[in-house]
Amino acid sequence: MAAIDNLRERLAQIHDLGRADSLLAWDERTMMPSGGAPARAETLATLARVRHQMFTDDEVGALIESARSDVDADAPPGESIDADLIRVVGRDWQKARLVPADLRAEMAHASSVAENAWVEAKERSDFAMLLPHLELNVELTRRFADCYDGFPGFSRTYDALLDEYEPEMTTEQMRAVLTDLREGLVPLVADATDNGSEPASDPFRGEFPIASQRDLIRQVISELPFPEGSWRLDSTQHPFALSISTTDVRLTTRYDEDNLAMALFSAMHEAGHGLYEAGVDPELERSPLGNVRSLGLHESQSRLWENWVARSRSWLERHLPLLRERFPASFDEIDVSGLERAANRVERSLIRIEADEVTYNLHILIRFELELEIFEENLPLADLPEEWNARYRDYLGIEVPDDAHGVLQDVHWAGGAFGYFPTYSLGNVIAGQLWDAAGRDLGDLPGQIADGDLDSLGGWLRERVHRHGRRLSPTQVLERAGAGELTVEPLLAHLRERVALAVQA
Amino acid sequence: MAAIDNLRERLAQIHDLGRADSLLAWDERTMMPSGGAPARAETLATLARVRHQMFTDDEVGALIESARSDVDADAPPGESIDADLIRVVGRDWQKARLVPADLRAEMAHASSVAENAWVEAKERSDFAMLLPHLELNVELTRRFADCYDGFPGFSRTYDALLDEYEPEMTTEQMRAVLTDLREGLVPLVADATDNGSEPASDPFRGEFPIASQRDLIRQVISELPFPEGSWRLDSTQHPFALSISTTDVRLTTRYDEDNLAMALFSAMHEAGHGLYEAGVDPELERSPLGNVRSLGLHESQSRLWENWVARSRSWLERHLPLLRERFPASFDEIDVSGLERAANRVERSLIRIEADEVTYNLHILIRFELELEIFEENLPLADLPEEWNARYRDYLGIEVPDDAHGVLQDVHWAGGAFGYFPTYSLGNVIAGQLWDAAGRDLGDLPGQIADGDLDSLGGWLRERVHRHGRRLSPTQVLERAGAGELTVEPLLAHLRERVALAVQA
Repeated sequence: MAAIDNLRERLAQIHDLGRADSLLAWDERTMMPSGGAPARAETLATLARVRHQMFTDDEVGALIESARSDVDADAPPGESIDADLIRVVGRDWQKARLVPADLRAEMAHASSVAENAWVEAKERSDFAMLLPHLELNVELTRRFADCYDGFPGFSRTYDALLDEYEPEMTTEQMRAVLTDLREGLVPLVADATDNGSEPASDPFRGEFPIASQRDLIRQVISELPFPEGSWRLDSTQHPFALSISTTDVRLTTRYDEDNLAMALFSAMHEAGHGLYEAGVDPELERSPLGNVRSLGLHESQSRLWENWVARSRSWLERHLPLLRERFPASFDEIDVSGLERAANRVERSLIRIEADEVTYNLHILIRFELELEIFEENLPLADLPEEWNARYRDYLGIEVPDDAHGVLQDVHWAGGAFGYFPTYSLGNVIAGQLWDAAGRDLGDLPGQIADGDLDSLGGWLRERVHRHGRRLSPTQVLERAGAGELTVEPLLAHLRERVALAVQA
Repeated sequence: MAAIDNLRERLAQIHDLGRADSLLAWDERTMMPSGGAPARAETLATLARVRHQMFTDDEVGALIESARSDVDADAPPGESIDADLIRVVGRDWQKARLVPADLRAEMAHASSVAENAWVEAKERSDFAMLLPHLELNVELTRRFADCYDGFPGFSRTYDALLDEYEPEMTTEQMRAVLTDLREGLVPLVADATDNGSEPASDPFRGEFPIASQRDLIRQVISELPFPEGSWRLDSTQHPFALSISTTDVRLTTRYDEDNLAMALFSAMHEAGHGLYEAGVDPELERSPLGNVRSLGLHESQSRLWENWVARSRSWLERHLPLLRERFPASFDEIDVSGLERAANRVERSLIRIEADEVTYNLHILIRFELELEIFEENLPLADLPEEWNARYRDYLGIEVPDDAHGVLQDVHWAGGAFGYFPTYSLGNVIAGQLWDAAGRDLGDLPGQIADGDLDSLGGWLRERVHRHGRRLSPTQVLERAGAGELTVEPLLAHLRERVALAVQA
């Protein structure tokens, strides 16, 4: 067997164990009885260990070396699947060899335990319950980053963390984008929230029986360009999406009986992630090239469907009859302009996942800055609630009443995911650029959406973004999609329109 | 590290992969979108391959050998966990080494594909759709049995198949038990069904909205001695139970809007299996000793809760108010005696899982005989429907109208499980013996059940049966539980009482 074929088969088997891992993670958050937690932590740790051992095996390194002569190693990205595989997996292998299997297993185990502790800590709004788990996570993450000392392109602790979620993007590049964004955002948020205008009435607040919400959302998701029988939707505390394969996509949303916007826009968000996973070239199935790795690019897809599509006037206009049919008391009296304003309210708020588009990135900035302080300035974790609350006061002008509405609101740190948050803002930036590029190619995008044609946009995204998997970097994807270099301008222009809508109200 | 500790840790990791496998299997049958099927088959095949490679490694054999000197190898079963581990795993390892990893993977893949084909074949009642998959399964199973040529205790093809489900029981021993049973059953079935008495009215047939059935069954299951937060119940085409750990038990049942007995007694059956898995000694968690292997013993637990408990007068009397509350139209007019007769009807029927206790074992005999013909007399698989239908005519006196109600009714052969069916009858035999032994120890068992005390029986079974896991053989379990040697008499005595009830009606 040629080295490249042998390599592909080994990677496919490792990929299969990754699918098992995905299912275990999905089940843990959606289906598992609480008594399953200890065994789940052990199982995830073992799977992490076995996958790591299989991948970091000397023979895999030897196969990568041998396979270089089977492929055109100089082919530019996107031209040859095999050449792309060698390039991407070669770097993965170099990186993976630097981290001991025991440490990987310890991290997987600790974060599984901590995620369960987080559920209870959040319910009781008791940061102290999470603190020891968080301390262990941070200590393990430091040891993880230390493994990469001297790795090409890494010049500081946070570089190694960010690279897990946004490969080949440095802390400095990320900081530059977020700084541009902050400079554009601060005056915008002031315009939007300090103008004395009355907040629009909010039809998304009221009484929405969960069974009816579920029916509505199933219908909305089924209009999206997913193949039939390729997805399911469940409820969870913290919405997420993942795929077991391109035709087995698991979406979740969170239902709140008083707030329809929560479940509806979360579901559209997660569906955007799911469409990305479903749109990867079937030739990349069972290959590490099919595992989407840039979370920025991934988040661009969720935000695009959540914000650019589902909060657009044309999508809302098309769905107003459906909303009225399900929830007449809330929607019978409102017109399209009112609905558009309601879906695009701007207000200083406490919870990231409930935040409007305009203030959202301030929530991210706070987390990014705290992560840098934790890992590069040794911020004591016990001070985290106080530091968190101080920043919400400074940046958003609001008091955090308790930790459940503050530092405990997100699962990420409990899950050991440091370096993850900034990719959310990067996703918004990329979504703005892709939306503009798609509009230039497709013509009357709002008109298509108003007509219920979501396949045109879906097809464009699949072709220009999804199908590449890991073969292209985010900047290569942007460039080839006709969106140019990374820039915050399209996002800021979009947010200015949102603010104009809010102020006009 | 001592060899025994090293061995335990390796086996624990393999056990973790087994847990992942269990979850994949549960999800495939309860949750997975249809598009997930191809990837699921690949994933299950890879997991089977990796587990097999890890277990059959030379080092595991060397550790077993070294560990023999760490333990008292002559300790009788049940005295030393480590000695039991060496004994049981030593035999497993010898067996596993004889089967190539490729064959295991091929079997896992083929049965996953065939199970999906079976769902459609059954829906369309089209045996031809399943036939090629079945032929592949049989061919692979033959190759599997051939691997054990000359293995101690195996003298014929079917011995190797049976040993997968009923370790260390031979085809001849099984045939002896089933022959005893048949001799007792034939006159009984004739008495029960040819006596000219009117069939009892059946309150379990009617209109039962599935949501109400689900609520009722959740309540019934929650009365059983499961720890809180250790189980869940879902719906599926073919009910089953499995556990991911002793505190993560997955039960399923099948809802039929016209037939409450289907979901209710299936759920009690699967809960019996689940209680067994939940009752294994926590010290055996993550050990192969905790994987219950004798399906006969396993089935004894499901049948005991389904038939000896849930169809008893005392259990039915206690639950009649609940049935009336949920389904007044069906149960308001019936008294306890009528309910008892309805739950214990005897009739010649087509579907094994709907069959009454008395005729049930005839369904099993048919499958056992066909399996012996397939593997030891080369019965062509294309003739299976005809052979099946002929036996239903001979033994049960009924015509099979189509394959969905005949040879396609069970998933087992599609799943590659040959040698599995006879363990169902063995389970009935063992259940009869254990019920009698428990009654002798616990005193007024019917009175306890009538008072809603299920913990006494549950505790007795946990202590005498469940906690041992694989440490004791079924015959050792029976003997130590005070149930004596394997004998069909207690089962036949129990069935005679059922028949008396039917004839009296």
